[in-house]
Parts: sequence; C-alpha cells; structure tokens
Amino acid sequence: MAVALDSQIEKEVRILRQGLRRQRNLPKEAKNKVLYDMAAALMAGAEPILEANRHDLAQLPAQSSTAFRDRLTLNAARLQAMSESLRQVAALPDPVGEVLSDKTLANGLRLKKVRAPLGLILMIFESRPNVILEAFSLAFKAGNSILLRGGSESSHTAAAIYRLMKSCLGGVECFYGMEDYAREHVAELLLRKDLIDIVVPRGGEKLIDFVQQTARMPIIKNDRGMCHAYVDEDADLEMAVKVVANAKVQRPGVCNSLETVLVHKNCAAAFLPKLYLATDSAKLAWRVDAGAFAILKDKPRVEPAQEADWDTELLDLILNCRLVGGLDEALGHIERHGSKHSETILTKSQTKARQFQQDIDAAVVYWNASTRFTDGFEFGLGGELGISTQKLHVRGPVGLNELTTPRWVADGDGQIRE
Amino acid sequence: MAVALDSQIEKEVRILRQGLRRQRNLPKEAKNKVLYDMAAALMAGAEPILEANRHDLAQLPAQSSTAFRDRLTLNAARLQAMSESLRQVAALPDPVGEVLSDKTLANGLRLKKVRAPLGLILMIFESRPNVILEAFSLAFKAGNSILLRGGSESSHTAAAIYRLMKSCLGGVECFYGMEDYAREHVAELLLRKDLIDIVVPRGGEKLIDFVQQTARMPIIKNDRGMCHAYVDEDADLEMAVKVVANAKVQRPGVCNSLETVLVHKNCAAAFLPKLYLATDSAKLAWRVDAGAFAILKDKPRVEPAQEADWDTELLDLILNCRLVGGLDEALGHIERHGSKHSETILTKSQTKARQFQQDIDAAVVYWNASTRFTDGFEFGLGGELGISTQKLHVRGPVGLNELTTPRWVADGDGQIRE
Repeated sequence: MAVALDSQIEKEVRILRQGLRRQRNLPKEAKNKVLYDMAAALMAGAEPILEANRHDLAQLPAQSSTAFRDRLTLNAARLQAMSESLRQVAALPDPVGEVLSDKTLANGLRLKKVRAPLGLILMIFESRPNVILEAFSLAFKAGNSILLRGGSESSHTAAAIYRLMKSCLGGVECFYGMEDYAREHVAELLLRKDLIDIVVPRGGEKLIDFVQQTARMPIIKNDRGMCHAYVDEDADLEMAVKVVANAKVQRPGVCNSLETVLVHKNCAAAFLPKLYLATDSAKLAWRVDAGAFAILKDKPRVEPAQEADWDTELLDLILNCRLVGGLDEALGHIERHGSKHSETILTKSQTKARQFQQDIDAAVVYWNASTRFTDGFEFGLGGELGISTQKLHVRGPVGLNELTTPRWVADGDGQIRE
Repeated sequence: MAVALDSQIEKEVRILRQGLRRQRNLPKEAKNKVLYDMAAALMAGAEPILEANRHDLAQLPAQSSTAFRDRLTLNAARLQAMSESLRQVAALPDPVGEVLSDKTLANGLRLKKVRAPLGLILMIFESRPNVILEAFSLAFKAGNSILLRGGSESSHTAAAIYRLMKSCLGGVECFYGMEDYAREHVAELLLRKDLIDIVVPRGGEKLIDFVQQTARMPIIKNDRGMCHAYVDEDADLEMAVKVVANAKVQRPGVCNSLETVLVHKNCAAAFLPKLYLATDSAKLAWRVDAGAFAILKDKPRVEPAQEADWDTELLDLILNCRLVGGLDEALGHIERHGSKHSETILTKSQTKARQFQQDIDAAVVYWNASTRFTDGFEFGLGGELGISTQKLHVRGPVGLNELTTPRWVADGDGQIRE
C-alpha cells in the first residue's frame, strides 16, 4: 500500500478521489451538458487538435504500419464522428440509480438493488485518439471518474484533446489525462488499490499480461479475439460464403474479426472454392490443414498450417482453415483454441445451432451471422469501453450499464436479527 | 502458464476441466438429485463425519480460542442444518439458461443475454466444515465445478465430507477436495489461469492479500467488514439502542457485525448511557473519543480510542464510539474508514436517510435496521459463498445468480456487417 507515486500524479489522483462523492451524485442534466459542450467544442476547436495530430504523425517512424498510422490519424470527418458519438452518449438514459430489483422481506425490510458508479477507473490504451472521448463519455455518464494513459505515439493529439475536455468541465474534477507517463510509474499506480477502483487495459497481449501480473485492483480486460466460424454440412453455402467472407475481410484488424474457419468435410469441396473466390479480391492468404490443402492446393496464397496457427490472433488478411468430421470435432477445436470472444455456426439445423450455442463458452455465440457484430453500438449499448473476454462482471461489449455496479439499499423500521 | 503442478492435482484439475462441458449442460433434475442424495447421506452417514471431527478437535492446540473451536465443531444439530441447507438449494430455481434480455436489432439479429456458469472455481477457505457443502451446493447448482482447499485444522472432517459427497455424484466429475495441500502448491495453482476460471478466497486479511498478489485469474473476494452505525440527532433513540446493540453483540465474530458507532453530539448524552445499559450484560468493552469519554468515563470497560481503532476489524465484543457534528462528518468518517461492506443510519428523517444511502459507497446501506441482515439467506438468495466487498460482478452476498455470468446468444439469417 505504501508505494510512492510521482508527486504530481499522486496529487491529481487524490483530487479525483476527493471528487468521487460529488461525481457519483451529479444530476444527469449536468453530465449531459458537459457531453454536449464537448461535442460542440470539438467542432469549434478542431484546428489545434488536427495540428497536434499532424505533429504526432510527422514523428512516427517510417516503418510504422499503414494500419497503425491510420488508427492514429484524425481528420474533420473523424472529429465529426467523435462529436456525434458524444451526443449519442448524452442522449442515453442515465444508469445511475436505476432500480434493478425491489422486494420486501418477511420481516418488513424493504430491499432495493440499485445501479451505482464503479468509482475511479484507470484506463490504459493504445494510440487511438478517438478512444479518449469514447472512454471518458461512457465512464463519466455512468458517474465514474477516469484516469487516462494513452500510447506515447499519440501524446500531442491526446494533450490537445485533454485541454479541450478540461475547458468543458465547469470545475467538475472527473478525469486526468496522464501525458508522458512512464511505464514504471504505471506499475506503481497499479499497486494502489487504495486509490484506483478498477483498471481497464486495452491493447496487445503484452500490455494485458503486464497489467494482470501487476494490478492489485480488479481488471476489466479487453483481450484477444481468436474467433471461429463452423460451416456445417447442413449450411446454406451461399449464406455461409457471404458471412464467413464478411467476418474475415470486412475489417481484419479488429478483435471480432474471424481467424479460423472450420468446415464440415462433407461440404468442404463445394464450399472452399466459393469462399476462395469471394475473398480473392481482398488477396486473402490461407493457412490450411491437409484436407483443405487437397482442395485448394492449386490456388495462390494457400499454404499448410502450422500447429501454432490455431492459437495465433493475426488480425490480418490471413485465414486459418481446417476440415472437421462434424459438430463435436468443431466444438472440441473451439474449446481448445478459442479465446472466449465470438464464435459463429453456419447451418440450417436449429438443433445443431442450439447445441453449438449452448456448448460454446464465449462472450457471444452466433447462428448464421457474422462475428463482426460484437460491438457496443451494434448491440445498442451506446458504445463500448472495449470487449470483455473475462467472465466476471461483463462478457462482450463494455457499455454504460457495465460501468456501474449493483449495490443494496435497505429501509427498515427497527429490524434486528434474532 | 508453464508452471508445473503437483502431478496428482494437475490430473484432478484436468479431469474437472474436461467435465465442464457436461457439467454446464447438466439438467436441473440431475443436479437436484445429487443435492437431495447428499442431504439424505449426511443424515444416514453422520457417524464417520462426527468421528473425524472429534479427531480434528482432539488435535487442536490447547491455546485455540473458544470461537475457533466452536466454528470447527460439528454435531447432530449442525449436520441436520447442513442437510436442510442442501435441500433448500435444491429447491431454488436453476439459474443456468435464464434469459436476462431478449431483443431484435434493426438488422433482424435476435440477441439474447442468458445466464451461464462461471466454469471451474477454486475456493480457499478457513477451517469451517459447514462451508464445504454450502459452497459446493451453490457452485454446483449454478453449473460450475469447484476445487476446495480448506484449513488444515479441519482436514479429517473435510476428508470425511468429501468421501460422502463423492459417493452421491453418480459419476459426475464436478468437485475435488484437496486434502493436505501445501501453501506453495496453492501459489502454483493461482498462476494457472488456463485451468481455473475464478478464485474465491475466504478468510483473514493475510489470505486475501496473498491471493490478490498471486492469482492470475479474477477473484471474488470476501474481505473484512468494518461496519458503522450513525445515530442521528433525529433518531428514535429506543429504536437506535435496539438496532445498534443487535448489530454489535448478537454475533460479534462475523463480518456484518458492527465495529464503530458514530453518534450525533446533540443526542450523545441521552443515547450512550442507554446503549451502555443495553449491552452491559454482554460485557461489551468500549473504545471512545474524548466526547464520548466525557459521558461514559465513570463506567467500567470504557477506554480512550487510539487512531488505529477506527480501521481495525476486531470481530469481538468491543465497540468503537465517536461523536460527530452531523451527517457530513459521519459520511466523511465512513468514507475514510469503512470497508464498503454494510453501514446503517438511525434517523427519523427520510431526507438524511436518503443522503446517507446515496453517498455511502458500500455493498449494503441500511436505514433503521441492523447491519446483521447482510447475508445470502436473509436476502432470499439461497445461501451465499461469502460477502463481496469488491465492486466488479457482485457486491454483498454471493448467491446462486452471482455464481453465473451473462453471455450473449445471437440468431441470424445471414446478417453481415456493412
């Protein structure tokens, strides 16, 4: 408990903690005003943010990937989308105080379960500037305060956004953006369960492991997505081609995209050439088992899979493919290799679909639909702080409700326990 | 990930993991039969358990406290209560598969949120043999498997109960009782997030800290209860005396009992002598601030409080007492010293009660009732695996529903993301 922090951070975190009582009682009108003000300020004050963003982009090493550069880039359209997203969160109902259950015990004690904020959230995230406002707005609307620590590549952009946010708070102390905050200081912060209620790491496996091994407070983790599609012999093959192609190539760099397709051996010869054709223009590469290789071996970009491929989230235009003898074998493969994120079955058989959905232990299990729908906006949760693959508290998209905690409020008239 | 376990434990844990798919699909009739069979076996086969318990008690060091000896002791009445508790859990509705929400998105995707088991739970607990069946029955009914590791003082009793349980399972592999399992092996197990889904530590602060610093999987912790009562100047003093005395002396050794009473200075002179009188027969000792000392100084068993007393959970017949100038000062004290377990206000003012209940960040906040009600059975949750003072997943009693996790099941007809 006695770990010392950088004195500036200690001071800022203590200010946030002292503000928690006020923050969790903030009326929804006050919260929504802050969000609408930020949305307007983002449109009126875009230039300093875009300028800072050009600065960050100019400092990016030449070898940075196009995908990374793209995630870091802001432009007028993206600021517009960020502004719109703030307004959407403002328009959502306030979760704080929502009554989840209300009963009167035999002894007359009235017992309500109500939603309350989590408290002070530490979020550690990659260099995606749009994450800042999405995370802040959801945490803030749910009555929480938030400490933000982003990747160093976006530090100027983040600093400009933090300045804009600060100017809209009207004195409410509810966030602190840690600029230039070193990894060793983050480790110190992760030991301070007296100051931080919850930590949310978003990023690669190394970051998640570091947080999991260091943090003394509970974690909502946004882990890898090793997602599978199982194409059953009873599948509508046209639909299966469309869904699998979408799950794989529509946006391969995100966690709800597909990594592996498992195909029933009875329909593989009919299905695989069609899927190949449908994804040919995206230049999809294939890592396939012996059975699939026998079918696809004459095509370009097809090579035999290695054992490690079944466990590797590539987030790239590469698809693993394996033939299976039926549903049981597919279930066994997913049990061994899945990351409990999103899985889908393509079949016309409701019996097999139900068995798949019942047996698979994942956050979201689809029947005849793309895994790409695992998303807070798509699910109607008003955005997301990430996708949880853990089982405690929340599975799947982390939305507004998931940033609260249920607590009990009991009204009596002198009840004592005999 | 590559930590080696004792080979016997590794084998047993793998058997449980392999059984998880079957366990989470077990029909409720099969689960209830196991629970009813155990309830009957406990009545029919009491003697070997009582014999083992006598053995454990005989080996207890002479300096063991009466309270500890009492918690370890089994007798016919306690076995009867354990048996009854198994039947109560059997009679509860099966939480697995319960539909928590059901909606159809604009694109036609039907999205259900359903309760699913957590998976394999590791429970580490103190030497209370009755915890074994309470934990097993709740975990099992919620579709989970459980690894149990109890305190060494009750090892013979635990072994006898494990044997009885095993004989009622009808081949379902859903629990393993670790007899004589050393602390260093527990540490190894806590690193194996590939094998264990959730760990539930129950016991002293040292155990909780050890688990929190070691475990790589999520924790449901059963922490200390530093519970407060605030007696407002607008309190019904007769009621306040009855409630505070109950919360303190009815069973001081449990986490929902009171540690500190905060009294409004305007009613202290009237209230404190009455409370003293009401708790005199229990030989309650007092640790009081200067204001309370001025009122109680002539009484036996009253001494000035030390600063550390406000943060120390004694679980004993000792009450801390402090005078405050009003609600705000009481709220400030509880914010600084409370453990987020159970707090109560005594007042006739609804306004003050609502402010207290709104401002206090604890699992359960009472108005005019004893903190002793924070309990799974009392709350109608069918027992409890413990009382959670954390904010993720569950606050307060950990009952049947809290041993499940919501997951999403989505039915489509070919939906893809544009």
